[in-house]
Amino acid sequence: MTQALQGCKVLDFTHVLAGPIATNYLCLQGADVVKVESAQGDTMRNYGGLTPGQPGNAGMGPSFVSVNSGKRSMVLDLKNERHLAVARRLVAWADVVIENFRPGVMDRLGLGYEACKAIRPDIVFCSVSGFGQSGPLRANPAIDQIIQSMSGLMNLSGEPGSGPMRIGFPVVDTFTGMLAALAIVSALLRREKSGEGQYIDVAMMDAAMVMMVSVAGPYLAAGIQPKKQGNLGYSMSPTADTFPTARGDITIGAVRQDQFEQLCAVLQRPDLVADARFADRRSRQQNAAALRAEVVRALAARTALEWEELLNQAGVAAGAVRELHEALAHPHFAHRGLTLPVQPPGGDPARILNTGFLLASDPGGTRRPPPALGEHTREVLQELGYPPAQVDALLGATAPDAT
Amino acid sequence: MTQALQGCKVLDFTHVLAGPIATNYLCLQGADVVKVESAQGDTMRNYGGLTPGQPGNAGMGPSFVSVNSGKRSMVLDLKNERHLAVARRLVAWADVVIENFRPGVMDRLGLGYEACKAIRPDIVFCSVSGFGQSGPLRANPAIDQIIQSMSGLMNLSGEPGSGPMRIGFPVVDTFTGMLAALAIVSALLRREKSGEGQYIDVAMMDAAMVMMVSVAGPYLAAGIQPKKQGNLGYSMSPTADTFPTARGDITIGAVRQDQFEQLCAVLQRPDLVADARFADRRSRQQNAAALRAEVVRALAARTALEWEELLNQAGVAAGAVRELHEALAHPHFAHRGLTLPVQPPGGDPARILNTGFLLASDPGGTRRPPPALGEHTREVLQELGYPPAQVDALLGATAPDAT
Repeated sequence: MTQALQGCKVLDFTHVLAGPIATNYLCLQGADVVKVESAQGDTMRNYGGLTPGQPGNAGMGPSFVSVNSGKRSMVLDLKNERHLAVARRLVAWADVVIENFRPGVMDRLGLGYEACKAIRPDIVFCSVSGFGQSGPLRANPAIDQIIQSMSGLMNLSGEPGSGPMRIGFPVVDTFTGMLAALAIVSALLRREKSGEGQYIDVAMMDAAMVMMVSVAGPYLAAGIQPKKQGNLGYSMSPTADTFPTARGDITIGAVRQDQFEQLCAVLQRPDLVADARFADRRSRQQNAAALRAEVVRALAARTALEWEELLNQAGVAAGAVRELHEALAHPHFAHRGLTLPVQPPGGDPARILNTGFLLASDPGGTRRPPPALGEHTREVLQELGYPPAQVDALLGATAPDAT
Repeated sequence: MTQALQGCKVLDFTHVLAGPIATNYLCLQGADVVKVESAQGDTMRNYGGLTPGQPGNAGMGPSFVSVNSGKRSMVLDLKNERHLAVARRLVAWADVVIENFRPGVMDRLGLGYEACKAIRPDIVFCSVSGFGQSGPLRANPAIDQIIQSMSGLMNLSGEPGSGPMRIGFPVVDTFTGMLAALAIVSALLRREKSGEGQYIDVAMMDAAMVMMVSVAGPYLAAGIQPKKQGNLGYSMSPTADTFPTARGDITIGAVRQDQFEQLCAVLQRPDLVADARFADRRSRQQNAAALRAEVVRALAARTALEWEELLNQAGVAAGAVRELHEALAHPHFAHRGLTLPVQPPGGDPARILNTGFLLASDPGGTRRPPPALGEHTREVLQELGYPPAQVDALLGATAPDAT
């Protein structure tokens, strides 16, 4: 019995979000991830809602805890030649190298793909960047919201005619991280069969396009340009939309004729089915405003949570609009094993998200906390076979573990 | 030399979006995907912008083409016992079974995980559903916008105080599909090492939570509730936001002090750096409205595209807001090999998105078109070893290939 990535050694030069999310998926599936940080540490250690320096939060910011639990942390100064030599020994140790510096930085450090391949011929090497390692935009700096702008993503959400609207969280970072994880695991599978390593170039801009496949695909295939349509669903059915109720909003997904009829039955408005204006899908779209007004009137009789239950009992997809904390408190998740407990060093007990998929055998997860900065520098140096005197000498130059 | 999934046989019972997106990732990496369809075919064949029945679009709707190219299509009637026997032979042939029926349907068909495992002990079996195979919501119907409502996703985007706002495309479907692909490839890697199969339960609701890790993580770790913040970035810096210009909008990502100083230099407003109201990150947040007004005034001098170039030259992350078609037309993508040509049978030449990651060796992609409905029924039956008379008899019951 074994987790999918058990025994897989990952040398992780990434920081902030997309890269650490990629290695989080590997770590939660059993990989041994050594996170190499500068003496200042990953920016995310002191980021994300709590005041830096607040007790219990020194280097253990909630965003850091979320995606770095189970990894080991090692502090190296990549401008120091002796530390670079350690990095090269780590490459020989590793199955996977992942980095998210600007394109060219790893090459200048002597740690680019070709250099790593010379050390470890079957290395799987993944670069994560804003615009990729090739193309005219490659040198541009990028953060999630820049990619949301340039990719067209900001012109998809909102009411028709409204201005650009960002998706309110760094969704491109998340998607990029998972795409990198998929590419890495795929390359490891290929290596099992062929013995060969791989170089993987993952870009946030490319990832944003792939994430938009449901609109970018039809545009590429047939020139169809996406339109903003508020909360109206992909189907454009007026009864697949979000509506107010006596208390709270509800989204209903009645698309097919039978779903529309069921909806009308639950709303106790069978007359709507008989109404010529709403006779079929096309006529319902043509009389969308009138149909919506009727549905809104009927929904005013109960709360969103009540309608959610009644509609689902009748087989009509419906979900009350919830805040994130309400969603996570739903009893459903207690059955799903979606989260794991972790104990950040020096901090309060916390929970993290697991991989997001359930497995029958050897499920994902970690019992190890997020690492303190440089917590494992000594341990990893010893594993690499450095003699004690050399370990001490190397640690002398790395403040956090130099006590 | 070999693609990562070359030689991998995938028996695909999925339809519409999340499931076909999962197998699209496998197919583009070399897997042999046999898509089992009813005689009516995947709903997506006649969906997504073009009128059903329009010449060149019969069963080749742009949404279908986008995520089904390279697969083989086989028509089976799973209510017919002789066809169920074919499905069981396909299970013996397959490395991976994937399905997105409602929970329990595959069991009732005699094609559930335990039944498949009895036929093929090392099968990797993935179920994709709205709420998963366990928990009180498991039987509920789900579509993307229902999950966006119930997961909290609709309360993350938009201006503070605004109502629920859907992300304007089925992002949960896309993310769920990629998560399923990651889980499947991970299970195949585990099988290479352990010889064991796996059962994978992927739910759109779980996937939505994992997609929101940047906000769900901090909530789980430290109780921090996300707030809507319009186009203001994750950093909450007033100079990491979207602004109007002389022509078009631009998003600027100036977060750190040095980035703010560079921004002011490019705007030819060095006085802003010296201004006590904007002296450091905290004071800039306290005087956000005043700072925004100054930036907007300065940006009125040029177009978004001009500012994009000037700011990037100065090392400040900036991107003009583009429509999707403008983004895809950017010369950058010509260097990225993001898309592939395909020729749908009976339709116009089209392009599809590739995997979204670039590989140095054996890159992803397919030369095969999206399949006509049942195009490969005969071929697959022959591969399974059915004698000619039996092939003809089986085809007699499947209209599309019964010519």
